[in-house]
Order: sequence, then structure tokens, then C-alpha cells
Amino acid sequence: MPKRKPWGGRFTVPTHELVESFTESVSFDARLYHYDITGSIAHARMLARVGILTDAERDAIIDGLQGIAREIEAGTFDWSRELEDVHMNIEAQLTARIGDDGKKLHTGRSRNDQVATDLRLYVRDVIDGVRDEILNLEETLLAVATQEVETILPGFTHLQVAQPITFGHHLLAWVEMLHRDWQRLGDARVRVNIMPLGSAALAGTSLPIDRAYTTELLGFAAPSCNSLDAVSDRDFVIEFVSHCALLMIHLSRIAEELIVWASEPFRFVEIGDAYCTGSSIMPQKKNPDVAELIRGKSGRVAGNLTGLLMLMKAQPLAYNRDNQEDKEPLFDTADTALNCLRVLRSMLPEVTINRDNMRNAAARGFATATDLAEYLVGKSVPFRDAHEAVGNAVRYGIEQGKDLSEMSGEELRRFNPAIDDDVTEILTLEGSVRSRGHVGGTAPQQVARAVHVAKDRLARARDGQAE
Amino acid sequence: MPKRKPWGGRFTVPTHELVESFTESVSFDARLYHYDITGSIAHARMLARVGILTDAERDAIIDGLQGIAREIEAGTFDWSRELEDVHMNIEAQLTARIGDDGKKLHTGRSRNDQVATDLRLYVRDVIDGVRDEILNLEETLLAVATQEVETILPGFTHLQVAQPITFGHHLLAWVEMLHRDWQRLGDARVRVNIMPLGSAALAGTSLPIDRAYTTELLGFAAPSCNSLDAVSDRDFVIEFVSHCALLMIHLSRIAEELIVWASEPFRFVEIGDAYCTGSSIMPQKKNPDVAELIRGKSGRVAGNLTGLLMLMKAQPLAYNRDNQEDKEPLFDTADTALNCLRVLRSMLPEVTINRDNMRNAAARGFATATDLAEYLVGKSVPFRDAHEAVGNAVRYGIEQGKDLSEMSGEELRRFNPAIDDDVTEILTLEGSVRSRGHVGGTAPQQVARAVHVAKDRLARARDGQAE
Amino acid sequence: MPKRKPWGGRFTVPTHELVESFTESVSFDARLYHYDITGSIAHARMLARVGILTDAERDAIIDGLQGIAREIEAGTFDWSRELEDVHMNIEAQLTARIGDDGKKLHTGRSRNDQVATDLRLYVRDVIDGVRDEILNLEETLLAVATQEVETILPGFTHLQVAQPITFGHHLLAWVEMLHRDWQRLGDARVRVNIMPLGSAALAGTSLPIDRAYTTELLGFAAPSCNSLDAVSDRDFVIEFVSHCALLMIHLSRIAEELIVWASEPFRFVEIGDAYCTGSSIMPQKKNPDVAELIRGKSGRVAGNLTGLLMLMKAQPLAYNRDNQEDKEPLFDTADTALNCLRVLRSMLPEVTINRDNMRNAAARGFATATDLAEYLVGKSVPFRDAHEAVGNAVRYGIEQGKDLSEMSGEELRRFNPAIDDDVTEILTLEGSVRSRGHVGGTAPQQVARAVHVAKDRLARARDGQAE
Amino acid sequence: MPKRKPWGGRFTVPTHELVESFTESVSFDARLYHYDITGSIAHARMLARVGILTDAERDAIIDGLQGIAREIEAGTFDWSRELEDVHMNIEAQLTARIGDDGKKLHTGRSRNDQVATDLRLYVRDVIDGVRDEILNLEETLLAVATQEVETILPGFTHLQVAQPITFGHHLLAWVEMLHRDWQRLGDARVRVNIMPLGSAALAGTSLPIDRAYTTELLGFAAPSCNSLDAVSDRDFVIEFVSHCALLMIHLSRIAEELIVWASEPFRFVEIGDAYCTGSSIMPQKKNPDVAELIRGKSGRVAGNLTGLLMLMKAQPLAYNRDNQEDKEPLFDTADTALNCLRVLRSMLPEVTINRDNMRNAAARGFATATDLAEYLVGKSVPFRDAHEAVGNAVRYGIEQGKDLSEMSGEELRRFNPAIDDDVTEILTLEGSVRSRGHVGGTAPQQVARAVHVAKDRLARARDGQAE
Repeated sequence: MPKRKPWGGRFTVPTHELVESFTESVSFDARLYHYDITGSIAHARMLARVGILTDAERDAIIDGLQGIAREIEAGTFDWSRELEDVHMNIEAQLTARIGDDGKKLHTGRSRNDQVATDLRLYVRDVIDGVRDEILNLEETLLAVATQEVETILPGFTHLQVAQPITFGHHLLAWVEMLHRDWQRLGDARVRVNIMPLGSAALAGTSLPIDRAYTTELLGFAAPSCNSLDAVSDRDFVIEFVSHCALLMIHLSRIAEELIVWASEPFRFVEIGDAYCTGSSIMPQKKNPDVAELIRGKSGRVAGNLTGLLMLMKAQPLAYNRDNQEDKEPLFDTADTALNCLRVLRSMLPEVTINRDNMRNAAARGFATATDLAEYLVGKSVPFRDAHEAVGNAVRYGIEQGKDLSEMSGEELRRFNPAIDDDVTEILTLEGSVRSRGHVGGTAPQQVARAVHVAKDRLARARDGQAE
Repeated sequence: MPKRKPWGGRFTVPTHELVESFTESVSFDARLYHYDITGSIAHARMLARVGILTDAERDAIIDGLQGIAREIEAGTFDWSRELEDVHMNIEAQLTARIGDDGKKLHTGRSRNDQVATDLRLYVRDVIDGVRDEILNLEETLLAVATQEVETILPGFTHLQVAQPITFGHHLLAWVEMLHRDWQRLGDARVRVNIMPLGSAALAGTSLPIDRAYTTELLGFAAPSCNSLDAVSDRDFVIEFVSHCALLMIHLSRIAEELIVWASEPFRFVEIGDAYCTGSSIMPQKKNPDVAELIRGKSGRVAGNLTGLLMLMKAQPLAYNRDNQEDKEPLFDTADTALNCLRVLRSMLPEVTINRDNMRNAAARGFATATDLAEYLVGKSVPFRDAHEAVGNAVRYGIEQGKDLSEMSGEELRRFNPAIDDDVTEILTLEGSVRSRGHVGGTAPQQVARAVHVAKDRLARARDGQAE
Repeated sequence: MPKRKPWGGRFTVPTHELVESFTESVSFDARLYHYDITGSIAHARMLARVGILTDAERDAIIDGLQGIAREIEAGTFDWSRELEDVHMNIEAQLTARIGDDGKKLHTGRSRNDQVATDLRLYVRDVIDGVRDEILNLEETLLAVATQEVETILPGFTHLQVAQPITFGHHLLAWVEMLHRDWQRLGDARVRVNIMPLGSAALAGTSLPIDRAYTTELLGFAAPSCNSLDAVSDRDFVIEFVSHCALLMIHLSRIAEELIVWASEPFRFVEIGDAYCTGSSIMPQKKNPDVAELIRGKSGRVAGNLTGLLMLMKAQPLAYNRDNQEDKEPLFDTADTALNCLRVLRSMLPEVTINRDNMRNAAARGFATATDLAEYLVGKSVPFRDAHEAVGNAVRYGIEQGKDLSEMSGEELRRFNPAIDDDVTEILTLEGSVRSRGHVGGTAPQQVARAVHVAKDRLARARDGQAE
Repeated sequence: MPKRKPWGGRFTVPTHELVESFTESVSFDARLYHYDITGSIAHARMLARVGILTDAERDAIIDGLQGIAREIEAGTFDWSRELEDVHMNIEAQLTARIGDDGKKLHTGRSRNDQVATDLRLYVRDVIDGVRDEILNLEETLLAVATQEVETILPGFTHLQVAQPITFGHHLLAWVEMLHRDWQRLGDARVRVNIMPLGSAALAGTSLPIDRAYTTELLGFAAPSCNSLDAVSDRDFVIEFVSHCALLMIHLSRIAEELIVWASEPFRFVEIGDAYCTGSSIMPQKKNPDVAELIRGKSGRVAGNLTGLLMLMKAQPLAYNRDNQEDKEPLFDTADTALNCLRVLRSMLPEVTINRDNMRNAAARGFATATDLAEYLVGKSVPFRDAHEAVGNAVRYGIEQGKDLSEMSGEELRRFNPAIDDDVTEILTLEGSVRSRGHVGGTAPQQVARAVHVAKDRLARARDGQAE
């Protein structure tokens, strides 16, 4: 005997079994239970404050809801697909527990504003969670950077050796990327933190509700200002997923570098055993699976974003059932972002840095050619002419199998007479990086200062100070 | 005490707990167990045939695997996350059951070719399943179309009334869309039906395997011709998902029309109670939730496609762990496509067609204006002049509040003198549709013929004859 | 004879012709010329300030660049594909004009930080442009809303009549959606407004540059803090495109409603001739093409976003040539967003509102059923029981062909004895909307207040006050 | 004075200027002119055959259209935005040239079936073009593979050295990927090659057209069987773009490998100067820009696909103006695919292969560990035990800094007593690859055979024989 639907008054035929399972959402929205109950308790308090519920009714409801929460957490709650979603499951159970008082809870609200509230509470929480994990990862990176302020490795552009840089500088580039993610999610949080209850189905309610009170109880910044918009708006979901997609791009870039650096020809790093897996057939393999999975998962979150944009495309106001499809990509995105951040932070301290390999790689590939050109500028050679002269010297070096630092002053002067013997210092790796000492440059003392600045910023972020 | 990894020989430190849960796939790839066991049994038979296993070892392995299958189906199998995936879980259990013989099963193969085989078997099956459901839906549509060959409704372009058409004709347009999906999936199946076993990790194996035999046992058309490609290829997954994305676009278009037609101002159709749901607040609501969810789910599958393309972007050969991320979007796509096809087919017979409302809507909006223009062409008026003349008549009709069929011959002649009184028949809805009797046209007798042709095609498709 | 490449020193073989056309970007990045010249002038001023250029050299360079800008604007500039991009074209022309001084301009910078600067200047400008157009569209909507504060139409959920609302309320929902877009773009602007010059290729420069001065000259808020990040960061492009994708979703939703409302069965609105087009075959057609194109263009921008995310996926630091692919989707997104906003704003005043049709539609579909249920709550009936009672009344109404407002008190009391004769007022459309007077509700007086609030907010936004 | 619109009869107000430029498509669809004229000539012939046109009218029309084609090709045609699209521009010019006969051309057709025809002719052509270029690229790869049948390099999984393979084998993996693209596009061509003319706006026409004749004239396989479907179907566009997206994924994977192989630490290959570009600041740089752009462009085509899927989502039948947005992503996709294929084929012969570096890299990383395990299987050791024993040997090797091939038989026997002194041959690179001689394996003689098979297949493909 199918359970009676709470909306079944006007219906003459029960829901088809296939439709039950096609339309149910409780199998995935049950995880919103905490937010649903929190929202319901606030709603009940408000109904009592304006006199729609008596204090006794309110207390019975709150008591019942808290009991349900405990049951869910204990794993003994009996979720029913026929009751469609988390909201109906909880409400039905409430009435089963406390009787007719339970039927009064849904006064002055609809599932439309209820689910919008649940979702906003959830997204607010996961934004906070993701932002915390970003700061944790920044902290870990800054700890490593502190130790690698003077470590020299080749900076690549086009995966070709470009110029020597310091490894601390490279790590700080990652910190910058991540900190923008932290900022972006903070901006998004402001738009999440809005209270939709009272919008009811789409038009508001004729009952004398007090939206300011519910707003206060739930810690929202303000009530939504348009009921139609409030029940159909999923911008905050898309914005969160969109920022996570960008975060995942950053993590995929970090992962890619770790994978390339861990390859045999590079061997800049070695990833700890605990963060690698082996092969079922090749006994020698130690694979950077964690980094690969992080790289791969960037596609997943971008796919979630595509799906959500397409979901909302051309939907007429107000709520349409299509919107039920917002939850799975949202949950999946939050889980993915959180897991990737956590596992990356956990792995980083287990990455061994092979400083010798890094340095040796920087010593190849004419990495100081730009230094020589800039040296010539200092001797009043126009930059374009300096560039051409050094290009010719490099071509000569390739033919002779000699790096610039291995050429004598005499040899170098063939390409431009302004070159003095003082050029030698310029062409060392240490001289090269030391000379880039301006804000944003790769010189060790500048990197040390940048680490300091980033640590300060991190501390302020932890204290809740916006940046 | 963590379980020993089957690949752990060279490792000194066990896998980190966070990495266990981050990298495990058994929570979603367990559903491949049937294909994994089928592939393993074929592999064991082959190993015995070439003498790597004795007949007794082969029989012990097959027996063990079949026992495991029964256990899984009975729900008593103990899946372990530490054993990472479906393959390792089954193999470990096999060895637990039958002892050392179980350790020989993985001879001459790797998880790389094993999972490729499992996936191909799975995709082959779901292609067949989706194609069957497409034919089922076509059949249902053709049954309705048979009854609606003469039903007149407005054909829309730009959601504006364009010309009268027959409802059977409209339903046949849906059938055409779906039949292309059926064809496309059939084409894709050819590329799925290739046997990767023997590719091992990436290079093949030095053991004397017999790939033709495994191919035959598993019903594949041919063995793969390059081992590197065979373990890194996920084209067949992307192609399947891509065709499903297009299928879902078609279903979203059908759903959109049902939603619009069911709205109060249209009321072309009424969807049966069993396929609608109500509102938690508005007692009168009966919502076309099934159609809305189908519409919304098109985004989900397009998102899966985006994710998979991005996943495979720029991966160097051969296998990378990123590929583990292929499974969830694949499974989700197959489930979504199958469920949407089934629920739509189930719902269609419960859609009541309001023929009067359809006909009345066609009688508005000057739907026969094109007929009048084509009539003038028959009177040797150049089409562009005819178009302009009728355009002027329509403008006059709007001002006067008169449809073309309500104007007298005399009134119409004001706009072009070639109009005779025989024009009247032309301007009726029935006359209009009847006149479009060529192949592909909307005339009832042509639609009846098209239904017949489509039913023949369907019968041939069911018989396995390609088209 | 091919032009000598400015980087050709070390090369022995000239660029292949096919590669010239494959890699050139000047065919699309020429439109950055203004930003490129602005950036170069600031760079030259800075070089002079720190003594790398003499004042005379600086002046010659600035003069030359300004001459080039005039030439480009006059359409007489000779763009060359062999010179690859906008930067090289302008620099080569500068040297042709002013001789060797021109060769000094590129001192202490690279194309990597140069293009990052150009792009940031461009994005900053288009953000401002899009935000202005959003405010313009809000203004237009508020002007219409002011007039439609009391107009009643059915509010839809699931495209089924839900409850009566006011048209002004509906328009304000659109305003809310748009204003979030305005906010989001404002947040993004903060991250755009950062100065990358001085990062050079990736490591900074050994020359004594003054980044604070360039920052000031170009009106940026701060210099970038990491040179590697500064040349490889395209977050600001993705963030802009991402926000535009969401904006386009909003515009597609507005467009969809206009299209549905303009269809014959609805006829809520009629779009002015100047904003419609006709059919080449059907003389009566008047199609809402503008709205359809806006709806369709939402896909285009979402596609641009997908492409950009995939572009940046797994790129190792620092700059890679892949990034050249960022420009076309960026330009296309900005153009699309601006054009859609402009044409929609221009069209809206030409949309005629058929208030009678709106009202009549609201009178159908038992739109006041929720009012009746809430009335019963006021009579102390638990909401769930009230919902069920009204559901039964609606079912009776469907069978009898009677709206709730057409039933006598006696008839209604069959469904719940608490119904008094005072129910009549409740069941009118005006009574229904009037009763939803809380913040965010649809009551005319509340909508009037909300219009007022939105106008204030708009005025503050125009004044540059954040919200 | 604005030009009179050919559909303007019923309109009282001219199109707004902003709308002109917003809705025009001639700026991008002009490139369809050849297909438009081809289709119109066939249509005119058909109209004459059925007596709607006289032979003289037909000849005048054909003559006029051919003149217009010449004018367009000469660059002297005056395209007008006010005439909206390629179709109207050509028709208006035809009437200007030949007078009233020109007005008869549009009889029995609409722009809806006209543009569907143009697009199908275009897509058919670009499919043929892309398929030809795929075969050309296969040919180039096979030529290189022929020379590299015995070249040894490390096969990677997870970018970690896995097993020695031959470079010819690796190149053949690329050929397999590409040949599937060729097949897929061939399958898609069947669905493209359908003739929509006669569908008119959506319902067909009342005029006595002969669709079989037009089908024959245009070389289509069959007329479309449903007029509604024929004008709203864009499946063939999506299918083409979808297959190109997968093709681009393959090209991005090839590009990625070239980039990694060209990096200093790998140096497996060196890309010729003519296919690289330099740096504006770093004189030594030689960057693999072509490969990077190919890699980057994979995102662009995936973005086009996303955009098209979203474009078609939930469109009600039949034609909607949204569809105009199909052209730019289609054209861009075809151009991108063709250009990438061409430039890659042109570049490959200019890639120098550093066989020594490849071989040396294979000699590192315990690449023959699997051979040792398989050797043990031959000695009746269960594979899992063999795997563990070799894993232990590798751990010992890492500690001792010795490769497996450097260990004595005695040393190796510590890990498993079954190891004889005959193991030496097994552990050489040549022995390893030679032992993988089954179909799909990496042994030189097998690769030579596979090259032969692929060349045969290529020859058959060029002869138009399906595979």
C-alpha cells in the first residue's frame, strides 16, 4: 500500500512506481538533513513568535526534530523513497512522532523556499570548509618555501628552460593562485548568505511571518528581496561550482608539475611511498597516482559546471523540477575540492626535493642568456640589438657544445664588443637570480620577503580579515 | 593492520589512509564485477589452452570465480577499500578461496588491459540496452502516431503559429530524431567490440598467449592491434557518452514540448496523475515533473561529456591514473539515458491529447497564409510578389480582426487580382494539410505511409538488421 | 623575402609558411592595440624615470607610439602576419618610424608580461562596460515595473499556474538576477586590477625598474607579487567569462519568458515590429528573433568558458603558447554580453503588455488555492489538513468545471467546516496578491517599495558605491 | 533609406538598426555561398522539371546565379547586412540582375530547408576534407614508423618508465587513434548525406515538387523523411563537432608527448627551427609553439561542442532562430581541425629523433622488471609471488644503485631461487622488446607487420573502401 503523498488531495491516481524512483531525491538529498532540521527549527520559532504556533506546539516540534536528527546520526532513521525527499521524510516522521502538531510546521512555507534555505546553509558551510583547506594548503606551501628560498631550478616557459629561478619563488606562485581562490569564494559567500524563507512557493505568504527573525536565527545577513527570484535562483550554486572549477585548474597545474618533476628524466622530486601506488604487473613501478587523480578530477568539476549552466538555461520563472538536478553536481564538487585539497596538503611534506637535479637542469639550456642581454643594455646597447647578439652567441654555443658561462670574454666579445670580463659573475646561476630583486622577482632576499608577506596575509585570513 | 598490497614488493612505507580513500575505486567500480569475472574466466581458459595453467588450475580458478559471483549477487561479499578496486578485491578473494592457484590468474595481463576489457564489455551491454529502449520508445510513439494521423495542430516555428500540421507528423519527427540515436550507437558499438586483453601494462607480454581465443570466448570482433593504444584508449567511452548527450538533447526537446503543451494557455495535452506530482503548499498543483527532470538531465549528461573530454586532454601515453575518473560519468550517463527512455515510454500512453484545443489553436494565427501564397504561385504570380500580397492581407486581417478564411474572395482580391473564389478550400486547415502530400510532408495519407515505413524499419532493427 | 623575426638570432631556418599562419595572432589581437600602446607608453616613462632611457628617447618613443595609434585608428596601419602579433607589429613599426630608439622600448619586459598587461587593461574596460549596460537594463526594467506594480498575472511554477502575482514583482525578480551579475563583476574587477609589468618572461628583470610608478601610471591598484604567476595567470579571463556565462543564463531565462509569453496561446505580450523578423515563406509570421538569439547565445558563452577551463587544465608554469587561445573566447564573450544587454534594453520598451490576457490567465487554474489553505490555517486548521481539504475542493472543481471563487460558502464548507462566508475576498486575485505584503512578497504596495529600494541601489551603483 | 525586407508585407515598422546588426548572419554565413548557389541551381532545375518554371526562367536563374558566384569569387560582390544572410543577399542580387524571374526561385522552399541544405553540403565537404587530412597524417606517421621499427625508448605509464618499447610501436598507437577518427567521421557522413529541400518552412509544400530529382542533382543519398525534423535537426552538426572534439583530444595527446620529449631533461626529439618560435626577451629560447597551440586548441573545439549541445537543449520544434548560432562553432571547428592536421603533418618530418637519448632513458628505471617476473612464471612461480620477488629485487637495486641487468645471477637468486643464469638475455632491452611478438605487441618484427597492415588499410581507405 503506497504511502499517501502529502500533496495528494487533488490526485485520483497514485504515482507510478517508475516515477517514484525517477523523481525521488532522498537518496542524495538526505545528506542535507542537518540543514533541513536547522531551518525547520528556526521556522518553528518564528511561527511561534508571530502567534501561528503556541509555545507548546513549537517546543514539541523542536523536540521532535532534534530527536529525528539524533536518529539520523545514529543511522536508525528509516528513509523512504515514496516520501520523495529529505523534507517530506523528516516532516512525515515528525508527525508520526508528535502527532497533529507536526502538520503545522509547514505553515507559511513551501518546499521551494525550504530547499533554497537548506542549500544556502549547506553552501555557506562548504565554502567555509574549502576556504579553510585552502589556507591549510597555503600554510604547508609556505613552510616548504621558507626552506627553499635559495634553491635554484630552471624556470620553464613552453616547458623549455627559460631562466634560473628559486624554488621558493615557484612555490609562492602556487600560493598566489590559491589565495585568489580563497578570495573568490569569500566574495561568493556574501551572495550565498541570504535568507529565502518566507518566499513560500513563489509569491510569499498571506500569513503574518517575521522574516527578520528567521534571518537572525539562521545567521544570514539579510532576507531575500524577491520571492520569485528566491525560489528559482541557483546562482550561488553555480558561482560556488565555478570557483571550485578554477581552483581545480590550479590544483591540476600543480599536479602536472609534480608528475613531470617526478619522471625519471627530470627527477626534481620524489614522492613518498605512502602517496604512490604500484602496478599489478610491473614490480618496479611507483606511480604518482594522487597527483594524477587530482589532475583528472579537474575535468569532473568543469563537467559539473557545464551541467549546471545547461540545467538553468532558459528556465522560465519560478521553480521548475529541473532544479532538483542541482544537488548531485554541487555535492560532488564540494567533496572533490575538499578531498583534493586535503590529500595534496598531506602529500607535500612527503615530497623529497632533489636540489642537485634541479640545479643541474638550470645549468643547461643557456638559462642565463637573458642576463647577458640585460648586461648589454646596461652597456647602452639597444635591447633588440643585445637580444640578437646573444642569440648569435647561443647558436655558436650549440655548435660548439659550450654554455655561455663556459665562453671566454674574448669569445663573447665576437658577438658584441661591449662585453667586458666582468660579465662572468652575471652568467652564474646565483648571480642571475640575485639580480632579480624587485617586488615579484625571484631573488632569494625578495622571495624571503614575499614569504613573510604571504604568512602575514594568511594569519589575517585566519582571523577572518578580508583581503 | 593494513592488508598487504599485491604490488607492494618495492615499497617501504604503507599507503597513507587518506590516499586509500582518495584513490580507491571499488565503491563505484564494484558494479563491473560481472564483466570482470567474465573476462577473468576467459583469460584463465586461454592460459590453460596455451599451457600456462593446468586444466586443474583453470577449473579451480573458474570455480572460485563463479563462487565469488554468487556471493556478490547474494550481497555477502566483503568489499575492501584497501584492495582498491573490483579487480584486486576479486583476485584477493579468489586466492583466499582456492590458495596458490589464484595467484596465477594475473599471469600475462595487467590491470590496465583488464579494466579496458571490463569497460568494453560493460559499454557493449549498455549500448545494447539503450538501443533496445530507443526502439521501445519508437514503438510507443508509432502507436500514438497511428491514431493521430489526421489530428490537426499548429506547427510552430519560433514558438509562433506557422502552418497547420498533423499530430502524427509531429510524433514522427520525434521518431526520426530517436532513430538517428539508435544508428549512431550502432556505429559506436563496432568500435567498442574490440578485445584489449594481451596488451598487459602497455607493451604486451613475453608469455605465449592466444589472443584470438580470448577474442572468441568473449564474443569480440577482433583483438586490438596496438597494446599502447589499447590500454590508454577511452574513445569508446567518450563516443558512447557523446551519443547519449545527443539523445538527451532529443529527449529534452520532447520534454519541453510536453511541458509547454501541458501549460494552461496551451492545454494541448494533459499528463496522467501517475506521472505528475503536487506541491507541498499549493493544493491545486499538478506538475509535469517527469518531463522537467528529463529536460534537466540533459545538462547532466552534457556535463559528463565535458568532463571526459577534459579528462583525456593532453594525456601522454599510455595509461595514467587520471583514467580512473572515466567510470562515474560513464555509469551515470548510461543510467540516466536508460531511466529517461523508460519513464518517457511509460508516460506517453498516459498523456491525454486534447484534439479540440489543438485544432482551435491552429485556426488562429493566419496559419494558412503560406497556402494562399502558394495558391498565387499556381496562378503564375512570382513567389516573392505572392508573399508580399499575402503579407498585406495578413496586416489587413490583424487590423480587422479577421482570419484569412473569414475574408471574402472580393476582400482577398484587393491584395492580388489573381485570387478566385476557389481559394476557399485552400484556406481550410484540412485543405492545407492535405495539400502537402509529398515524401516528408504532413498530409494524413503521407503520414500514414510514413508510419508504415517507420514500423517496417523498427521491425528490421529488432531483427538486428542494420540501417 | 620574409621579415626577420625579432627573436631570430639563434635560428638557422626561417619559420615555415604554414606555421606563420597557424601561430599568428595579429588577426584577432590587433584589437588590443590601444591597450598595448597605453602600456608601452607607461613602460617608456618608467624606463626614463629610472635612467634606462633618456628623456629624449622616451619622448621619441611616446611620440612614435601615438602616431601609430592614429594610423591604426585611421585604418592605414599595415598589419603584418609575419610579425605574429599586435606587440611585434607595433614595435617593428616604431623602429621603422623613429629608428634605434625604438629598439630600446622592449628593455626589461617580455611579451609575456606585456600581453598580460594588455589583457588586464582590456578586461578592466569591458567589465566596466558590461556593468554599465547591466545598470542600464535594470533602469529600463525598473521603469516598466513602476507602471506594472498592480498588474496581475499568473505566477508559474513548472509552467503551471501557481498563484497570482503582480507583473512588477516579476520584473523585479529579473532585476535581482542582474544585480547579482553586476556585483560579481565588481568583485572580479578587484582581481583584474593588478599590474604584471616587470615580471618579464617569468623571473623578473635584472634592470632597475620601478614597478610602483608603472602601476600608478596605468591606474592599477598594485603590482603583481609573483612574476611566475603574473605571466601564467589567466584566472581573471576565466572569472570574467564565467560571470558572463551566468549573466547569459539570466538573459536566456528572460528571453524564454518573452518567447513563451509572445506565443499565440499566451499572448501576454506583443513584441514591436522593429524587434521581430518575418519568414521567407510564411507571409503572416512575426518572430521573436531577438529573444531567440539571446537565448541561443547563452550556449556560446558557456562554450567559451568550457574551452578556457580546458585550455588552462594541467599547464605547467610559466607561460605556454596555449595561452594565445585565451583571446578569441574572451573577445567573443565580451561582445556577446554587451550586445545582448544592449539589444534587450532597447527592445523592452517596445514590448506591449496585454494586461487583460495576463489577468484572465491568472483567473484560471485555481490560482488562489493556497490562499484558501492559508485562510484555514488562520482558522487553526493544521496546514497539512488544510492542504488536503483544498486539494479535495480543487478536484471537485475540476469535475464541476468551477473555480474556487465560483463555489458558494456552503459548497466549500463540505471540504472543511471552518470555512466562513468571509472567504470570498480571500479568493479574488486582488485579495490574494494584496495579502502577501511582507518583504519580498508580491503585494502591490510591497512591490512599489521594492522598486523604490532598487532605484536607490541603482543610483548608488552609478555613483560607484559598492554593494 | 533601409532596403525593403523580402518578408516585410505584414510589418508596419522597419527593423531597428541595433536589431539589424544583432540578427544578421551574412558576416559569417557568406562563406556558404557556394553551397547556397549549388542548392539553388538544383532547386531551379527541379522547379522547371515539374513545370513551375519555364525552361527559359530556369536558364535565366542559373545563369544569374553563376554570375553571382563569379562575382563573389572575384571579391566584387556587395554583401549587405540589411539583407540579413547569404540566402537573401544572393536572391536579392539575382532579382536585381535578371528581374522578375528571380522572384520565382524561392517557390516551394523556405530559408529553413535552404539553410539546412547548405549546411549539409558544407558539412559533407569538410568531413571529406578532414578525413583526407587524417589519412595524410597517418601516411606521414607510417613513413616515420617504418624507419623506427627497432628504435627503443621507454614506454611510460603514469609518466614513469614502465617497459622498453619500440618507437615504431608508439607511432602506430597514434595511427590507431587517428584511424578511429576517420571511421567515425565516415559513419557521421551517412547521416549528413540526406536532402532536406522540400520541407519548406516545416510542413512541406502544396506545390508539385520532385524531391527525388533534387536529391539526385545534389548527390544526396535520400530525401529527408519528415519535414519538421528536417528543418530543426542539427544533429549532423553536433555529430561532426563531437567527432572533431575527440580528434582534437588525440592531437592534444600527440602534442603533449612532443612537448615533453622536446624538453631539456628528455631530449628525445628536437623540433625543426621552422616549426618553433623564439622569445622576445630570452635569446636562447626555441619553443614548440605549434605543438602547444594544437594542445590548446583542443579546448576550443570542446567548447564549441558544449555550446552547440546547450544551444539545442529544450528547443521546441520546429526551427527557432537560436539555430543561427550553429554556424560559427561549426566553421571554427572545421577550420581548427583542418589546420591542426595539416601543420602537424608538415612538422613531423622536421622532428629529429634522438635515438641515443631514447635508449638511455629506457635503460634506467628497472624497465625490464616485468620481464623478470614473466621469466619466473615460465619457471612455474605463481605470478603474484614472482611480482613480489622482483619488487624486492628492485628495492635492493635502488638501495645499491644497480639496475637488474647489472646484478649477477647469484644476487638475483636471493629473491627467488628459480632464477638461472639464462636470465641475462631476458633483462636486455632488445631481449625484452623482442619477446613481445604477439598481435598488438611491441616486438620489431610484429611492429613491421603492423606497419604493413596499416599501410594496406590506408590504401583501401584512399580507394574509398570502408573499414
